[in-house]
Amino acid sequence: MGKSPQARGLTGALMIRSLILLSLLAGAVVGGRNQSYNFDVEYIFGAPDCKEHVVMGINGQFPGPTIRANAGDTVVVHLTNNLHTEGVVIHWHGIRQLGSPWADGTASISQCAINPGEVFTYRFLVDKPGTYFYHGHYGMQRSAGLYGLLIVDVAEGEREPFHYDGELNLLLSDWWQQSVHEQEVGLSSAPMRWIGEPQSLLLNGRGQYNCSLAAHYSNSSSNQCNLKGGEKCAPMILNVKPNKTYRLRIASTTALASLNLAIGNHKMLVVEADGNYVEPFTVDDLDIYSGESYSVLITTDQNPNNNYWVSVGVRGREPKTPQGLTLLNYLPNSASKLPVSPPPVTPKWNDYNHSKSLTKSVLARKGSPKPPSSSDRRMILLNTQNKLNGHTKWAINNVSLTLPATPYLGSVKFLLNHTFDQTSPPESYPANYDIMKPPANINTTTSSGVYRLQFNTTVDIILQNTNAMAPNVSEIHPWHLHGHDFWVLGYGEGKFSEKDEGKLNLENPPLRNTAVVFPYGWTALRFVADNRGVWAFHCHIEPHLHMGMGVVFDIEGRFVKGIPSEALACGATGKLMAMDGKYP
Amino acid sequence: MGKSPQARGLTGALMIRSLILLSLLAGAVVGGRNQSYNFDVEYIFGAPDCKEHVVMGINGQFPGPTIRANAGDTVVVHLTNNLHTEGVVIHWHGIRQLGSPWADGTASISQCAINPGEVFTYRFLVDKPGTYFYHGHYGMQRSAGLYGLLIVDVAEGEREPFHYDGELNLLLSDWWQQSVHEQEVGLSSAPMRWIGEPQSLLLNGRGQYNCSLAAHYSNSSSNQCNLKGGEKCAPMILNVKPNKTYRLRIASTTALASLNLAIGNHKMLVVEADGNYVEPFTVDDLDIYSGESYSVLITTDQNPNNNYWVSVGVRGREPKTPQGLTLLNYLPNSASKLPVSPPPVTPKWNDYNHSKSLTKSVLARKGSPKPPSSSDRRMILLNTQNKLNGHTKWAINNVSLTLPATPYLGSVKFLLNHTFDQTSPPESYPANYDIMKPPANINTTTSSGVYRLQFNTTVDIILQNTNAMAPNVSEIHPWHLHGHDFWVLGYGEGKFSEKDEGKLNLENPPLRNTAVVFPYGWTALRFVADNRGVWAFHCHIEPHLHMGMGVVFDIEGRFVKGIPSEALACGATGKLMAMDGKYP
Repeated sequence: MGKSPQARGLTGALMIRSLILLSLLAGAVVGGRNQSYNFDVEYIFGAPDCKEHVVMGINGQFPGPTIRANAGDTVVVHLTNNLHTEGVVIHWHGIRQLGSPWADGTASISQCAINPGEVFTYRFLVDKPGTYFYHGHYGMQRSAGLYGLLIVDVAEGEREPFHYDGELNLLLSDWWQQSVHEQEVGLSSAPMRWIGEPQSLLLNGRGQYNCSLAAHYSNSSSNQCNLKGGEKCAPMILNVKPNKTYRLRIASTTALASLNLAIGNHKMLVVEADGNYVEPFTVDDLDIYSGESYSVLITTDQNPNNNYWVSVGVRGREPKTPQGLTLLNYLPNSASKLPVSPPPVTPKWNDYNHSKSLTKSVLARKGSPKPPSSSDRRMILLNTQNKLNGHTKWAINNVSLTLPATPYLGSVKFLLNHTFDQTSPPESYPANYDIMKPPANINTTTSSGVYRLQFNTTVDIILQNTNAMAPNVSEIHPWHLHGHDFWVLGYGEGKFSEKDEGKLNLENPPLRNTAVVFPYGWTALRFVADNRGVWAFHCHIEPHLHMGMGVVFDIEGRFVKGIPSEALACGATGKLMAMDGKYP
Repeated sequence: MGKSPQARGLTGALMIRSLILLSLLAGAVVGGRNQSYNFDVEYIFGAPDCKEHVVMGINGQFPGPTIRANAGDTVVVHLTNNLHTEGVVIHWHGIRQLGSPWADGTASISQCAINPGEVFTYRFLVDKPGTYFYHGHYGMQRSAGLYGLLIVDVAEGEREPFHYDGELNLLLSDWWQQSVHEQEVGLSSAPMRWIGEPQSLLLNGRGQYNCSLAAHYSNSSSNQCNLKGGEKCAPMILNVKPNKTYRLRIASTTALASLNLAIGNHKMLVVEADGNYVEPFTVDDLDIYSGESYSVLITTDQNPNNNYWVSVGVRGREPKTPQGLTLLNYLPNSASKLPVSPPPVTPKWNDYNHSKSLTKSVLARKGSPKPPSSSDRRMILLNTQNKLNGHTKWAINNVSLTLPATPYLGSVKFLLNHTFDQTSPPESYPANYDIMKPPANINTTTSSGVYRLQFNTTVDIILQNTNAMAPNVSEIHPWHLHGHDFWVLGYGEGKFSEKDEGKLNLENPPLRNTAVVFPYGWTALRFVADNRGVWAFHCHIEPHLHMGMGVVFDIEGRFVKGIPSEALACGATGKLMAMDGKYP
């Protein structure tokens, strides 16, 4: 087994980062090659769930092409915006953008949206092997279908710390019949029109809306799908040979749905989460929240005359969406040979104990870097649902995030203080707040303010969940951090308090980039702010972010060097030169 | 009757323009006030034709608010883009933008699209009284509902050259059930998916999709509308008193449909076209092409106990769209009192003789400025429908227009020659081209090239129509010029040739900004290129422009002064400053 990057000490990792940064600035690449892609983003007609829709595609494909590289490589994506009137960006989810914060692909934060007709080149190091993905990060373009996988293999000559014979990939998403534009308008309206539950779950961009692949088992009225295999929505079959071990890479880019995945008759050995190795553990089914990725090993040791269902169902919200299905097809069986047993049953949607148990099983693989033993700063982020002038918003410590027109990175770099609110949002919430009740909704505001973090300090974040606006409702929120991984120090019930301090796991907390906060609970995170730039930290549920559920960290963006001009050719930074008389 | 601005000689008008230009540059306004508006552009839920749709609205309204000013005023519109991911601009159709070419509101031509969250201030002189309108000019946002009226009254103290007691306004448009995004994707697809005929015609933004206001007269199966009056799609009734004269201002911002308007039992006296007075003439019905505006006088001298239908129907394409209807409501009759006779019948769609006769009746009012007796340059613009890599395009002299990412005005001002094709398109077409046959489709290209016109030269344009791709089909195209009015010197059949020269009308040709070219015919235009800037000249049918049916004139844009920085904070001009190291 090769020595994983995680096995190196923290100091070593920092040294390597600095070297990489220096070499990137010097235009050279250490030890890796360039992996170059041309991405043309445009709307195409697709049929993700057998019903025709306009879908945001890349190079005519939906989902977009899978990017593949080795650790140490530099990925170069020349992105052409072929949309008609919409800007676009792509976020490389889980890639930390060491020394390249302008390539993080967050509109209004790390760069200007790329205008129609423009080309923007993303160029970034993929320093760490793992299962990643990419997606739109402007408005709700992720929901429109702008996503794909990004897989980083170990550096050439190195080996994964586990063995497998083959690899299978599953990119999970959810799909609505209503256009994303209508969804956005509805969410922004007063009163809000909620998007409801997805009509379909997609596996690698394919689902079935008005039929079931497994209808012959059910007593329901759904029809057996009559797919001839050539349809755009025909399931992408997972082909395996008997008695082999496969690495199944799973990533969820759902807009809303928390998912549970299971494979008939097969157990799964979880070995990786969010691009970090975890201490292997076995499960029958796996919860995957939006923004998370996993690798599991499966062994094809079941009756080789049969095929088996791979099923995906909804967690944490009362499901109104049929299971997403595909087949684990034992070769040389025909893919048209349906399994003899029905698809695995998704655990009851509100069986939170099952979910918590699974989530808490994710722990760092032995030898992984440990967190600093203490933090320099702690923020407690209470998420509340609020009404503001008739609009429904999500707020963090009573502040609902609105993004400015000029990207923060340019604004902080060039001290354009007028472009966003210079007041930072509160770092905690009133001690007497009752998280078991709907929010009192006093003085909720919207703001573009950011938290300013000192470089190389250790920051603790307590995500504090609470009751939503309706009584007895508290939702799951998966929070995703840009530019960094964090250690998940623990999950708890109720309000986080000093007495929970001692329960935090400083021994083998997993490194992740996405962590869920359960209903009425808290989640404790720690990270070292060692990557200069301006970074989003937000609920990965697309409509929740649209409604303001996020915060922004400025980690000394003032001192970022090398920002390409293309990244800031809009708003106040684009205007700097355009003042009359200053033109050449 | 007051002395109209048109009654001044050409030299006088030019002198006044120069004065106005100078005073605008100096920040002062001659003789006029500022008329200021705040426009918030956002998507709203509307029901233009009784079926709910997402509509592009302004300040929560669809159509947008009516702008009203006096000649000599400066209109100031602070436009805030509240869309989520789309840029936006607004074109002030018919306003020449004397000395303010950056305020013409054409994305990629006169300015950068305004990004979400940005505010752009349009500030322009309205020098000439008339009936104008405004609309989106980016992608197909006009089709999405971004439009409204702009009415300029005579300067204070002056009088119109005709009398009326009251005023009525009709903004005409057409409406599709399919979203504009889907329309755009379909038009851009290979093979193209055509948008088809509109589902509804709208009068002041209101139509009825699945019922008819006048069903009780017809033998068709359509239901009588059961509107209670509170619906968003309930017709906007035109209230009049008996025995008065009304000025009915009519403007068409249709995406596709050519229209014919008639009022039961009432004749119309045409007095204005496109913001220019015409020699009054009487009609029973009036053709209005997209991009045109008219004022007609009607006298309410019919039986005052009755109400009368105002009807709008489709011309020039086999209609599949029900008539648009509203009522001329003689007060004090109730608006619920339906007329005793059925709505006027729209002339047969392909009765081109009727259309040509109407169009040729539009002549300049006596005393209007005459065209120069000769031109410095003549271009013949042949419009063909072509296939290009499987896509269906419209081309002018074999070149289909594609717009660059950096607005031309900035590119020519700052000599950024790499941003668009420096080769100008051809000024004519092969002499042996057979306009009666489908195009041979040889060497059709797309290009962002422009025609360069010398300031103050007189330019003739011959619009030459031809057969489309299908045999025996030739369509109507209404061409609209930005930044200038032109004189319409004549219309003819077949190919324009030297022998047509003598038939051109140099005595009383009408000044207009939009002129139609009839199937298999030609239209001759003349204008003085006396307004520096970069200006579009294009077919006003929205999908035709989308498919490349337009050209661009650069009238010494290099020498335009005073461009506000906001207009160019994108693309290559936005990047000028953003080069690392050049920042402050």
